[in-house]
Amino acid sequence: MSEDLFLKAAIDEARKGLSEGGIPIGSVIVRDGKIIGRGHNKRVQDDDPMTHAEIDCLRNAGRVGNYMDTVLYSTLMPCYLCAGAVVQFGIPKVIVGESKTFSGARKFMEEHGVEVVDVGNTECIQLMEQFIRDRPELWNEDIGK
Amino acid sequence: MSEDLFLKAAIDEARKGLSEGGIPIGSVIVRDGKIIGRGHNKRVQDDDPMTHAEIDCLRNAGRVGNYMDTVLYSTLMPCYLCAGAVVQFGIPKVIVGESKTFSGARKFMEEHGVEVVDVGNTECIQLMEQFIRDRPELWNEDIGK
Repeated sequence: MSEDLFLKAAIDEARKGLSEGGIPIGSVIVRDGKIIGRGHNKRVQDDDPMTHAEIDCLRNAGRVGNYMDTVLYSTLMPCYLCAGAVVQFGIPKVIVGESKTFSGARKFMEEHGVEVVDVGNTECIQLMEQFIRDRPELWNEDIGK
Repeated sequence: MSEDLFLKAAIDEARKGLSEGGIPIGSVIVRDGKIIGRGHNKRVQDDDPMTHAEIDCLRNAGRVGNYMDTVLYSTLMPCYLCAGAVVQFGIPKVIVGESKTFSGARKFMEEHGVEVVDVGNTECIQLMEQFIRDRPELWNEDIGK
């Protein structure tokens, strides 16, 4: 699978979240060219403010041991919670769909040696722009504003 | 309840985790002098590397909205994952049992304006020292080493 397909899998997760009435952010984690975990934001679905997409993805991947050779994909630039997981567990590379709607904790990750690639994907931007327009209160709750 | 009793509640959570075969770290979150959430590390119990004590505690507190007037207690200095949650959601104060066995992400929290109080509790230190002696591989897995 190519990077495009991994990002597409993350977008599929985001759309799944949206169809469940949730916040449309999705994530997958990849090792050796295979997705080993996937997830999406479940604040609304599970009444759980800690289950951001990346956290759900990393939880679903299970106890994989070392993250040295993994790449985390997210439809949106990770916030400090998710960036904290990246830094703590030593995930070396993060590929994000966009950071136009949320600048997140890119600098924090980079300061800790994480390679962050922002692909500026139009579909990801549109998904979040629409959601923030439709549900600003839910979005602000999710990022602690 | 006094600060001592809140820390004791976090220690009770840590001991509960230990009795379940898990990693003995516990946490509570307090608002207006009342515990509104509590939890402990569940890596082993739930096969879930994201459920550190503070994450479990914040999950169990539910969608509390604003964290402005909360205090988070943890038996151990938070790692970057948990400190990331503190910073992202604007928890202004963290009281920790100890940082002797793990220095954690204190500086990161302080740089983001979080007040961090380390009480150097003997019971917390002994609990972690014993656990790290008994299960070093599990401890290293938990902090991504």
